[in-house]
Amino acid sequence: MGSKYAQGFGLGSVNPDLASERQTASFSVERLTTVLDGGAEHTRVRRAVVEAIERDPVFSRENQYFQTQNERYEAAVRKAVHLQKKMHEMGWREDGPEFIYIYRALAGDVAFLLHRVFMRSISVLGSDEQVAKWIPLATKHQLIGSYAQTELGHGTYLQGLETTAVFDTTTQEFILNTPKISAMKWWPGDMGRSATHTVVFAQLYVHGKCYGVHPFIVQIRSLRDHSLCPGITAGDIGPKMNFEHIDNGYLMLQNVRIPRENMLNKFCEVQPDGTYVRRGSQKINYFTMTTLRVSLLSDEVILPLMKACTIAIRYSAVRRQSKLNPGEEEAKILDYQTQQEKLLPQLAAAYAFHFINNYLHKLFDRGYKEIQERNFSSLPELHASSSGFKAMLSQYCTAGVEICLRACGGHGYSLLSGLPSLYTKILASCIYEGENTILLLQTARFLIKCFAAASAGQPVPQSVTYLAAVKPGKCPAKNKLDFLNPDIYVEAYQHTAIRLLSSTAAKLQDLIQSGVKKHEAWNQCTVQLVQAAKAHCHYITVKNFVETVEKLENKAGIQKIMKHLCDLYALHGIFSNAGLFLHDGYISGAQMDMITASYLDLLGVIRKDAVPLVDAFDFTDKSLNSALGSYDGNVYQRLYEWAQKSPTNQQVHPAYEKYLRPLLHNKLSKL
Amino acid sequence: MGSKYAQGFGLGSVNPDLASERQTASFSVERLTTVLDGGAEHTRVRRAVVEAIERDPVFSRENQYFQTQNERYEAAVRKAVHLQKKMHEMGWREDGPEFIYIYRALAGDVAFLLHRVFMRSISVLGSDEQVAKWIPLATKHQLIGSYAQTELGHGTYLQGLETTAVFDTTTQEFILNTPKISAMKWWPGDMGRSATHTVVFAQLYVHGKCYGVHPFIVQIRSLRDHSLCPGITAGDIGPKMNFEHIDNGYLMLQNVRIPRENMLNKFCEVQPDGTYVRRGSQKINYFTMTTLRVSLLSDEVILPLMKACTIAIRYSAVRRQSKLNPGEEEAKILDYQTQQEKLLPQLAAAYAFHFINNYLHKLFDRGYKEIQERNFSSLPELHASSSGFKAMLSQYCTAGVEICLRACGGHGYSLLSGLPSLYTKILASCIYEGENTILLLQTARFLIKCFAAASAGQPVPQSVTYLAAVKPGKCPAKNKLDFLNPDIYVEAYQHTAIRLLSSTAAKLQDLIQSGVKKHEAWNQCTVQLVQAAKAHCHYITVKNFVETVEKLENKAGIQKIMKHLCDLYALHGIFSNAGLFLHDGYISGAQMDMITASYLDLLGVIRKDAVPLVDAFDFTDKSLNSALGSYDGNVYQRLYEWAQKSPTNQQVHPAYEKYLRPLLHNKLSKL
Repeated sequence: MGSKYAQGFGLGSVNPDLASERQTASFSVERLTTVLDGGAEHTRVRRAVVEAIERDPVFSRENQYFQTQNERYEAAVRKAVHLQKKMHEMGWREDGPEFIYIYRALAGDVAFLLHRVFMRSISVLGSDEQVAKWIPLATKHQLIGSYAQTELGHGTYLQGLETTAVFDTTTQEFILNTPKISAMKWWPGDMGRSATHTVVFAQLYVHGKCYGVHPFIVQIRSLRDHSLCPGITAGDIGPKMNFEHIDNGYLMLQNVRIPRENMLNKFCEVQPDGTYVRRGSQKINYFTMTTLRVSLLSDEVILPLMKACTIAIRYSAVRRQSKLNPGEEEAKILDYQTQQEKLLPQLAAAYAFHFINNYLHKLFDRGYKEIQERNFSSLPELHASSSGFKAMLSQYCTAGVEICLRACGGHGYSLLSGLPSLYTKILASCIYEGENTILLLQTARFLIKCFAAASAGQPVPQSVTYLAAVKPGKCPAKNKLDFLNPDIYVEAYQHTAIRLLSSTAAKLQDLIQSGVKKHEAWNQCTVQLVQAAKAHCHYITVKNFVETVEKLENKAGIQKIMKHLCDLYALHGIFSNAGLFLHDGYISGAQMDMITASYLDLLGVIRKDAVPLVDAFDFTDKSLNSALGSYDGNVYQRLYEWAQKSPTNQQVHPAYEKYLRPLLHNKLSKL
Repeated sequence: MGSKYAQGFGLGSVNPDLASERQTASFSVERLTTVLDGGAEHTRVRRAVVEAIERDPVFSRENQYFQTQNERYEAAVRKAVHLQKKMHEMGWREDGPEFIYIYRALAGDVAFLLHRVFMRSISVLGSDEQVAKWIPLATKHQLIGSYAQTELGHGTYLQGLETTAVFDTTTQEFILNTPKISAMKWWPGDMGRSATHTVVFAQLYVHGKCYGVHPFIVQIRSLRDHSLCPGITAGDIGPKMNFEHIDNGYLMLQNVRIPRENMLNKFCEVQPDGTYVRRGSQKINYFTMTTLRVSLLSDEVILPLMKACTIAIRYSAVRRQSKLNPGEEEAKILDYQTQQEKLLPQLAAAYAFHFINNYLHKLFDRGYKEIQERNFSSLPELHASSSGFKAMLSQYCTAGVEICLRACGGHGYSLLSGLPSLYTKILASCIYEGENTILLLQTARFLIKCFAAASAGQPVPQSVTYLAAVKPGKCPAKNKLDFLNPDIYVEAYQHTAIRLLSSTAAKLQDLIQSGVKKHEAWNQCTVQLVQAAKAHCHYITVKNFVETVEKLENKAGIQKIMKHLCDLYALHGIFSNAGLFLHDGYISGAQMDMITASYLDLLGVIRKDAVPLVDAFDFTDKSLNSALGSYDGNVYQRLYEWAQKSPTNQQVHPAYEKYLRPLLHNKLSKL
């Protein structure tokens, strides 16, 4: 049975096709929701936050699909300002249990997210004096901060930034400049129209010597009237695929002078005479960037896939098309094998990724504790994990959301389905916080090192100890049921991950030994290194899903249905990457046929619980904001009602008077 | 050397990084352009049309990325009306050589495309009297037509349409009704706000008997004042991922009466007493829908991929990031193997698809001639080809455009790159004119029949004669160079296509023999049938590319570079679908390593000519409408200049006065 809570404001009774899907659930939806939330108390808090946010009309996203970029921006600013009041009113604190649910409930549709990054930068990189000066102002929103790192010509490769900050000993100021157009800051959120201050990353020069990239606090707009400060050119970078509500901006600096105290100087400082002093470790700073990548996975990557699955699966249980058998009524499209094959692997992946996200959070919590005890040994593993999983999950979830969109046919293409905006937004996650290919290559570099160490019998981090276990041989499965044994498929994933890594390591070595320069050899192996890094993450994800299922309570059918999903996730991965498993004969062609048979069988099994499995994600209708995905399944009524609200139906269009009237045969009203 | 013509209005001189790419071209760009156009005369005509359209300010797309749906619609109507004048002025005729280039030059950004479908329906399905009455009015735009087939609850399965047309013998009228919400017409272009008339598809009832779906001409808006006619409810369906300029509409009919003469009656008629008469063959009608699918491939599917390649490859030759070798300057991103692996296979596919499109047009021209001689024997092959290639090409090109977009990082995500709108538009081609999965299953049905016939020694259509040639065995290649032999890889594709089809045919038969009902057995094979249909189309595409290269003039380096692209296309297909080729051991693991090596080598070879190869597509800057893809490569300047024109920079935003001013610390202007 679906939770009453998720029903929201329907258009009357639940569509009988959807209702019937819920009557046959093999497990308790409410209990599964609790498992996903990590306990009943979390579920309670989450629902309370969502309800409070959704009940407040200021936070409404009702007209979102009809708004211009200007309107979206204004609404987001209004929400950001209102949120402060709301939090105070509700007694929600930044360190309270409600906090993680607030942005989720707002679906990120709020301004000043970069203001938070601005504050975090100062907290982490600033001295005690700097923190004491800036954080109270920022907390009270007496200034609005941004974070200006990326330039028009420079993204991931930070050493290449071209903005300069030259120290002038005579005035004790830094002089900031944008020496050429490619050095213009480009993309920072909240900077196009809102921010009064920003942290600028620039190459520090003292007495003609370059000390590399450093962060500086720069005021860019007047606090009195919001006009641009002298020497500042700034504005909005214009329309994007999504994030219309965010004023991503550009910034040029022309001889902008800031006091010496505005360089963030916890870890390094320019003294009055120009002496450059570095102190402490910057490693913790590096860790902050690493954690950011992990912290965004849940809200920005996994939840969008869960939402897309909810919309597409509910719609597929309501939409009927063609006949499966002659003489019958038109069939639910979810009953077609091809539709199941599109949607159910995405559903299984959403669960797999939810669990791997829990794994990563545990890994990082442990790492954080070690680091606080000044033990930095886990940093490389944490960096490699955050890079690889961010890349793998964002890439898979983006593709998954697109599959869900397409699987809804023409109606999926309407913004009112909610799917286009999920897609255009999640797509950005493949690019921001490290472009995926570059991230996977960082993971690969770590794996190559660990592989060499493991091969030499040296100790390696826990997550890669399997690299020492190179076992040739063949998969022992004899029939299709054997492939529902997790030991069998986990072993296959492990074997393939090792094979890809070891063969690429060998190629790399061969190239270097044949005289190719090290960097060039690396470049010639990158396509295969990316494959190897993905295979590693894929293996860990499957293994973690299996371990999670083993630990689940064996009650209310939860463990059983999760085992099916785990099998589906694993076998789908083999089916769709068959070449990797067949390559060295570990899996034979005949075994691949068994895998295919088991995989297709599982589609039929999970199809029966597909709707309850998305109901368990517990999204409200308002959070889905989809005419296709509502709990009650009244898709056609809702599409029609929502379409009528479109601005395209709110005016007698001027095109008629201007262009059509002079043309039409208007002697008669009717032909 | 790039053609001067394509240069358009640059921002000064060509970026030296891009200029250097053009100095080393291994072939003549101008000659390749001529080959692609099908001769120098075609190139001349195309350029003349493009120039005339682009010089006319009414057709400008300059502000497109900043406009609202209402503004886009108004501009499209204006363009449609202006186009009539322009054609008259230029002496362009619908049957003239210029015609195919006009819509291409407008990038489809014009209204009343459905008006043309309205006219075609009447021409094909209407009697001589109906043609004589309606076509002159439509030609002079004294009415605006649309085409109302799809309903809210019914797409591809036409038999399921629910709109009714009941014949009333007493008044000699049809009474049209929308009996329930799922029967509402939904999606028809030009119907939301423009159309005065439409062809409505409805279930015909006479004396209580249903005769199936028929087309009726229905007036929906007054010609005098454009108000909705009695019984009509119509409007715009609201925002979509793209096509903002088109007023896709909804339509409800409530006891709308139309005269008996308004049923299109070339092939069937309701006589005054209600007698239903069917005459002639409807097969030609079916052929019209089939040709539509082929005719859209060039402009809506292949050209967008060519544009995306042009933008992404030029940008990748200008963008620099990180260092390939220590001590050097930052490298062009096109020099990274991973970037080559993203973009160059898309480039090769664009060429492959251009050539398969030529093949399909020849196939259809021949079929059309036969049909005019009342020989309908090629219809099944034509239907299967149009379905399969439409699905395969639209799916591949959509994925290709997305790869190009992502390969441009953050700047690709800006609408100003031109890539987001290419993507959101081409995505629709996977859904319209037949959803891709359904189309591939139609191709599969044809292949299964032909396979059975071929196995029984019966004659089959020319494109599938290979199905009779089931040869087990192994690929004979011994080293990586052998895989540059087209005989080797064409054979591998053929083998795989046959294997997939024959194994699925066997599974189907086994299921039926084991007692599974025929329709259910079909459903259980559909995932594999889709694979088989794709493999067939992939094989034909590779074979056709090889044959095209063989026939090319062996001059000016054209044949040589095309051979490289053909090899790349073929090997990329094997590399990315390795499992299909490894499955039965036709290709061994060791051979797959050779393929991978040859494939990666080819990336390096084609990279040298990558920019000239996209220059040869001969897109003007205006047609690309991209800040990243212009001929001169001045990407950063253009991004900055274009961003400044955004409406987000054209106002002092009201959010400041309303929300920010009360908040900010405004006792001081500066902190």
